[in-house]
Amino acid sequence: MAPRRQLVTLLTDFGTADHYVGAMKGAAYSVFDELEFVDISHDVPSFDIFGAAYVLRGAYSTFPRFTTHVVVVDPGVGSARRPILVMTDNYNFVGPDNGVFSFIYQSEVVNRVVHLNVDYYFRRPVSATFHGRDIFAPVAAWIAKGNDPRKMGDEITDYVRLDAPAPKQVAPTMLKGAVMHVDRYGNLVTNFTDTHLPREQMHRARLRVNGKEIHELHAYFAEAPAQTPFAYFGSQGFVEIAVSKASAARVLEARRGMEVDLAFSVEAD
Amino acid sequence: MAPRRQLVTLLTDFGTADHYVGAMKGAAYSVFDELEFVDISHDVPSFDIFGAAYVLRGAYSTFPRFTTHVVVVDPGVGSARRPILVMTDNYNFVGPDNGVFSFIYQSEVVNRVVHLNVDYYFRRPVSATFHGRDIFAPVAAWIAKGNDPRKMGDEITDYVRLDAPAPKQVAPTMLKGAVMHVDRYGNLVTNFTDTHLPREQMHRARLRVNGKEIHELHAYFAEAPAQTPFAYFGSQGFVEIAVSKASAARVLEARRGMEVDLAFSVEAD
Amino acid sequence: MAPRRQLVTLLTDFGTADHYVGAMKGAAYSVFDELEFVDISHDVPSFDIFGAAYVLRGAYSTFPRFTTHVVVVDPGVGSARRPILVMTDNYNFVGPDNGVFSFIYQSEVVNRVVHLNVDYYFRRPVSATFHGRDIFAPVAAWIAKGNDPRKMGDEITDYVRLDAPAPKQVAPTMLKGAVMHVDRYGNLVTNFTDTHLPREQMHRARLRVNGKEIHELHAYFAEAPAQTPFAYFGSQGFVEIAVSKASAARVLEARRGMEVDLAFSVEAD
Repeated sequence: MAPRRQLVTLLTDFGTADHYVGAMKGAAYSVFDELEFVDISHDVPSFDIFGAAYVLRGAYSTFPRFTTHVVVVDPGVGSARRPILVMTDNYNFVGPDNGVFSFIYQSEVVNRVVHLNVDYYFRRPVSATFHGRDIFAPVAAWIAKGNDPRKMGDEITDYVRLDAPAPKQVAPTMLKGAVMHVDRYGNLVTNFTDTHLPREQMHRARLRVNGKEIHELHAYFAEAPAQTPFAYFGSQGFVEIAVSKASAARVLEARRGMEVDLAFSVEAD
Repeated sequence: MAPRRQLVTLLTDFGTADHYVGAMKGAAYSVFDELEFVDISHDVPSFDIFGAAYVLRGAYSTFPRFTTHVVVVDPGVGSARRPILVMTDNYNFVGPDNGVFSFIYQSEVVNRVVHLNVDYYFRRPVSATFHGRDIFAPVAAWIAKGNDPRKMGDEITDYVRLDAPAPKQVAPTMLKGAVMHVDRYGNLVTNFTDTHLPREQMHRARLRVNGKEIHELHAYFAEAPAQTPFAYFGSQGFVEIAVSKASAARVLEARRGMEVDLAFSVEAD
Repeated sequence: MAPRRQLVTLLTDFGTADHYVGAMKGAAYSVFDELEFVDISHDVPSFDIFGAAYVLRGAYSTFPRFTTHVVVVDPGVGSARRPILVMTDNYNFVGPDNGVFSFIYQSEVVNRVVHLNVDYYFRRPVSATFHGRDIFAPVAAWIAKGNDPRKMGDEITDYVRLDAPAPKQVAPTMLKGAVMHVDRYGNLVTNFTDTHLPREQMHRARLRVNGKEIHELHAYFAEAPAQTPFAYFGSQGFVEIAVSKASAARVLEARRGMEVDLAFSVEAD
């Protein structure tokens, strides 16, 4: 039997025009040249920790068990923020302790969080500004090579958790949520799930974004007439707002962070 | 002897800022972690079926035999459009039945087109909006793993073929073609080939785009004086219009879809 | 023992929207499907030889020995410029002879530079415009496959070397340098190193860019107050100018090529 492929995913805000991603990969291959890199994205907006957390959430769980996920969105590089390793039942996560793993702490069984402070596993000398190359990539490669992650530092429990913005009940028939993400197509991903909008109640629900009402709520994507914003449960379980073959963000002039109202009419059901 | 590498190429309009490409790859690796992904492009303009068909045409045939090419430009996801698999003498193609394989039907010997309707090969539950992750990537992985693609659905013959825009003879010495693609350098790729412009007749031919005449027709690229648009046979066999170290699209204010006139002077040869 | 992975890095100005990168990879895999591609960047500005040389400089040396680095930023394709191979103690470099390897000639021990003129190692017919696909990628694959690069052409010694812009001493206490690169975060990378600005003299040095003075010179990145430009030694050894969690290029209205003055005050030390 062939040995299992050692997959290491990368998610950064490095962009793709500089040498940063290449240097990370080179540093990792110099530790262990048999690992397999998978780029999740390098186009997270600069310093956008929540944006990275959101993209990681959408991708990580499709990967085979024991994949190592590396995230480097790290506005605090060079400061006191700690480099960490999160070990869960299924995966390892490597990156800065700035809240970028907040969704992971909610959805995975966390077995241990390690403060990466054993510099044997680093590329030396460690620069003050490029821990992707000098700490995170080499650590991932040492893990891929089969080294025990528990040896790479001390266990910590006070790691940083950001509160993901949750919808609030503001009236008996009204919740206030938010646009959590705008994707490439201009689809608006809200933070409503089917716990807020049960599928059997869709027929009496309406959404409002930026003062504009969305009347069409569907289970499927390609149902609404042209130019009409409609809502549906997206592939991640969140209510999304789209316009057929067009950008809902443009049609609704909406952007990330905007409020989304979810109201239920009181028709008899 | 090492087993042949199982190459799977990806061509999508997902962009690189969201989790979509990563999630597709993760879903495929979860089926078969020994395949090898090659990204052709994820920057096809949103919903641009012809644009994807064109990029696929330029890349696919450079790959070794038995490579599987996956294309996900899929404005009809969630509607009745069928997921398909195209088996040719040399390659497998996986994607939506929306015409994105139109050039393939012309240039390859098609042995079978399969409507992918055996959900054993899908990631389940299949979402309504993300067939890249739930259908196309897993199917490609099952093929890479050695499974017989003919088992993955029913043969069909009524698959969608788009007419590639062909030049038209509009006068004895004049053809009307079009700008099929504008590349990163601003080069204009027309739909004229050497069947329309035989190389031995180049000296008496002129092109006109956006009211501007191109007098310089060359076999090679780097011959023309600075700032002067010139035409030549590009690396794909089409007549292209370029400006040395500058953008022909900018100099000629031209864009995709614009008419291109090809006229022959009647000088004695 | 598993055989060493045959790593081939790619650095181009092809962008990621066209078929160019995919076609290069396909052509290489058709020669040798066991090589491992690593994308350094495809977003070098079109025709920007110095930009490519700079990115290569930042990435290449992190890779394991015997990696082959391919660079295709090639405004002279189709002209008389030669395709070359640079063999150093540690790596092979493949690309056009236009100065893109200038930093390599400074930092590596060059054993031989070969003019690639043995077309047995090319994809044939060789197009006039796409040597990435037809020459550079196949040559890299033949090297990865174990072929002796010395057989691939004649040794040359008159390869093109560009002068990297070096700081100049313009007064006893003043040097003039330049912004060599602006990265994704808007950090300005200058061409000053610690030979120009010894660390123990930082306390009496000031930088001036675009008429604005930078008083804060630090060894580390995350020390300065918000909105205040500061300088430090970056991860490549150059003095960089940054603004905490913001873009120094925007704050200072600076761009590549701009002069940077380095002045020392004459306080007693």
